Amino acid sequence: MSARRVVGVIGGMGPDATVDFFAKLVAATRAGSDQDHLRIVIDNDPGVPDRTAAIEGRGESPAPRLAAMARGLVAQGAELLVMPCNSAHAFAETVREAAGPVPFLDLIETTVAATRERLPGVTAVGLLATDGALAARLYQDAFEAAGVRALVPLGDDQRTAMDAIYAVKRGSADDAVRARLRLVAERLAAAGAEAIVAACTEVPLLMAEGDVRHDGDVLPFVSSTDELVRRTLAEATAEG
Amino acid sequence: MSARRVVGVIGGMGPDATVDFFAKLVAATRAGSDQDHLRIVIDNDPGVPDRTAAIEGRGESPAPRLAAMARGLVAQGAELLVMPCNSAHAFAETVREAAGPVPFLDLIETTVAATRERLPGVTAVGLLATDGALAARLYQDAFEAAGVRALVPLGDDQRTAMDAIYAVKRGSADDAVRARLRLVAERLAAAGAEAIVAACTEVPLLMAEGDVRHDGDVLPFVSSTDELVRRTLAEATAEG
Repeated sequence: MSARRVVGVIGGMGPDATVDFFAKLVAATRAGSDQDHLRIVIDNDPGVPDRTAAIEGRGESPAPRLAAMARGLVAQGAELLVMPCNSAHAFAETVREAAGPVPFLDLIETTVAATRERLPGVTAVGLLATDGALAARLYQDAFEAAGVRALVPLGDDQRTAMDAIYAVKRGSADDAVRARLRLVAERLAAAGAEAIVAACTEVPLLMAEGDVRHDGDVLPFVSSTDELVRRTLAEATAEG
Repeated sequence: MSARRVVGVIGGMGPDATVDFFAKLVAATRAGSDQDHLRIVIDNDPGVPDRTAAIEGRGESPAPRLAAMARGLVAQGAELLVMPCNSAHAFAETVREAAGPVPFLDLIETTVAATRERLPGVTAVGLLATDGALAARLYQDAFEAAGVRALVPLGDDQRTAMDAIYAVKRGSADDAVRARLRLVAERLAAAGAEAIVAACTEVPLLMAEGDVRHDGDVLPFVSSTDELVRRTLAEATAEG
């Protein structure tokens, strides 16, 4: 039997995305065996200062709060840390420092690595992300370093994507919001994206594999939430 | 604006019930207003010794682990504690002691009070609960003190209910399991129950309001999970 590491979740950004990550991690764990259940400690704090506002220089930095959450989870027994919010990874270095010797599984690296592995032939992806994540170039730089072009929604399309993400945070996402986001994704495909990357953990609450089509074909969809679930489970149950 | 208390969740019994409680608390919070989000800290530990086995004297007591979880959550900042597992309330006194001055919202008291308030005319309820919760008489004594008869499934029917609950914990609940549990509830109604109480937090994952009928009428259904969500939200957002 492999040792199991206690998973610490820096959450609340937003709460629905944390619920989604937790539910998927519990479901994925169970798919293993009855004995594979993981201890998961969660700090779901919706009061963390807005990441996009901080990145754009319009608001307080979330870094001190993220560091405090990391330390609190480690004190609770966490043996590896995850943060199911992409934009917050602009402050990943602070979290890593606060975590000390406890490994922090970077969501951006995880998603880019999974995209490369699942879709080795892809040369260009379309990003659905917050303004903050795009301004910080979290995904653009990581994909470009991996030789993959990262396309972003232009002008009003990015505003539509941002509105859709914040509709989830406000609990007001409906079918019209979903339909508008799907059009944004389809325009990314028309611009050359061969796959759509949900580079924000609210996006999988709005869109799923199979939703986006171009020229009659379904576009591959990479969910950063699902990829973090897979990597968390792998690392938490790894030998030694 | 009212002060908001940080909610601590003693969870993992089982993980799906904790996911369900967390998802419902987030959804209920949002129904208030954008600013009503709560900080929720969760210790989801599926390794807590089995409650029924301990109550029946066949297994290790979960009390020390529950006390440690309570203390850990208080250290994380929890200002009120909940434990979305009914059977574990056989050890509620230990949790209350470990919590010190931090209030612990008792799930049994909450559910019985809500039943009395929502269904003032009811004189007999049917319990769907674990063997351990029934052996500890958690609900029978509380309902009887409130002047309400508590009926329990007899013989094979209790075995069926217990199997259904453990199917959720194992992740193997299917339509056949749900149908069998519904028959158990219908036999409680035939025996005189005027309402069904989901006295186990796995039961709302198997059955919902409207599922149980007797003589052509739908029986009222009281979910201990939903009642704990309502009370938690009320106490976490109460003035002063």
